[in-house]
Amino acid sequence: MSLLVVGTVAFDGLETPFGVRERILGGSATYIGMSAGYFVERINLVSVVGDDFPQAHIDLLNAHKVHTEGLQVIEGEKTFFWKGKYHMDMNSRDTLDTQLNVLEHFDPIIPESYKDCEYLMLGNLVPAIQMRVLEQLTTRPKLVVLDTMNLWMDVALEDLKKVLKKVDVLTINDEEARQLSGEHNLVQAAKAIQAMGPQTLIIKKGEHGALLFGPEGQIFFAPALPLAEVFDPTGAGDTFAGGFIGYLAQTKDTSFDNMKRALMYAATMASFCVEKFGPERLEHISDAELAERRAQFTQLIHVH
Amino acid sequence: MSLLVVGTVAFDGLETPFGVRERILGGSATYIGMSAGYFVERINLVSVVGDDFPQAHIDLLNAHKVHTEGLQVIEGEKTFFWKGKYHMDMNSRDTLDTQLNVLEHFDPIIPESYKDCEYLMLGNLVPAIQMRVLEQLTTRPKLVVLDTMNLWMDVALEDLKKVLKKVDVLTINDEEARQLSGEHNLVQAAKAIQAMGPQTLIIKKGEHGALLFGPEGQIFFAPALPLAEVFDPTGAGDTFAGGFIGYLAQTKDTSFDNMKRALMYAATMASFCVEKFGPERLEHISDAELAERRAQFTQLIHVH
Repeated sequence: MSLLVVGTVAFDGLETPFGVRERILGGSATYIGMSAGYFVERINLVSVVGDDFPQAHIDLLNAHKVHTEGLQVIEGEKTFFWKGKYHMDMNSRDTLDTQLNVLEHFDPIIPESYKDCEYLMLGNLVPAIQMRVLEQLTTRPKLVVLDTMNLWMDVALEDLKKVLKKVDVLTINDEEARQLSGEHNLVQAAKAIQAMGPQTLIIKKGEHGALLFGPEGQIFFAPALPLAEVFDPTGAGDTFAGGFIGYLAQTKDTSFDNMKRALMYAATMASFCVEKFGPERLEHISDAELAERRAQFTQLIHVH
Repeated sequence: MSLLVVGTVAFDGLETPFGVRERILGGSATYIGMSAGYFVERINLVSVVGDDFPQAHIDLLNAHKVHTEGLQVIEGEKTFFWKGKYHMDMNSRDTLDTQLNVLEHFDPIIPESYKDCEYLMLGNLVPAIQMRVLEQLTTRPKLVVLDTMNLWMDVALEDLKKVLKKVDVLTINDEEARQLSGEHNLVQAAKAIQAMGPQTLIIKKGEHGALLFGPEGQIFFAPALPLAEVFDPTGAGDTFAGGFIGYLAQTKDTSFDNMKRALMYAATMASFCVEKFGPERLEHISDAELAERRAQFTQLIHVH
């Protein structure tokens, strides 16, 4: 098994009702990679940062099994920066600042040894860049999972539709599913999106769990764990995606039944992520904690 | 087992994106009773209507095992009327008209033979009227379930708090739980509400399922079935409550484990309700349909 993750590595500025962080490690690939590291021994990362990106963050990624040979460091430029503020309900957030910096001219260069990856996670990026990754691969991966966002539906819909034809699994949230499909009802939205290419669709509903739509109308639902304290939802969706593809890569099984299991681990990882600021909680999850949390999910829906 | 249901019997005017009904059978006790009728052989109803209430509606209730000896018919007055309009997302609705009519002076008179009921479902009503019901009972029921709404938190909070001390299970939606507790987080909201009296709390989240909070921090989650068509959500919450208490009364078991099973049947019944206008779908559910739908819920969250 080999897992390639392409996405952003960033600085995030975060404001939640519980506190503020000016400039901490963030980015889709950061969360995906650190989450997947709980399931596989090695994650190959392709991303870009500026020369302001500290070695300590690179060391942290490496310590979580995220290999950074494919992390471009652009001299004289700055790392992507995003700043957001969450409101009390934690479901809505305002973007306060976005500085693309190195992302503006990002050309993902896939190292030779990564080009035959079996599992590929395309984190949220400009769809044309996601396509550039696929074009460089020498063999078709066993599984391609793609995440995207409403912005690309607004400004790069045709590019998004092109790349969607090439992926196996799409992960988006409920509002994005509605926007992409033009259908309000999520079952109908899923059907419309699956017709665009991805055989499998994951609709993330945040605190309301996630729906997995497979081929032939199969549906599975993974709940979110009701938590007494949600500290910071940043990265929860990427952590979810990382748990999903990490579990699949670990178990080497992309059947719908195994995707159901993967979704439960995805939800489990996301439940950790929101407990602290940024990726802090993902730095220290013990095997026992992971097993116990996964068991709580089983208990939550267990009826006999 | 004997099940007493007290609540409204009404005319509803409904507008949804799929059509309009000017004046159809509605009311909390109607949905609760018709839903519970799929689980028990007899539901004792206490409610009030005006002399404009047609015999056909009474016949319909009777045909669904809802006994109407306790249904007061007030000569010269009109039945409670509510008119609402749903928007495309079906989660929000505007009240277009409310005519209390007979409800304004409703004094629930519990027939002698109903006063020793084992299971009591207090549908949404003025809290002081719900209290009047409890005062008339000769024995404390095995289980008292109460439903309420945000309006009473606004205009009759003290009365609501008084009656909450006397009930075992409270069913409210997520926004109401937040309002009643003053806590945004639902786990913390549940804890605060349980401290007000009800040992058990059900938080209904509509299309996002329902949470069951039991004693000693126990939590269970019942999903909602992702439906391709949601026609009219009117009465879904009451149908849910009717399925819940109906199943408990049928099985004569009020343990937390059995409440979990009851919640799955509650969700099952609610999933039928939304498929047609008003209570129309509740008129004809076959045993096979009920069993098949219940199995779909198991399948939805089944992972091995």
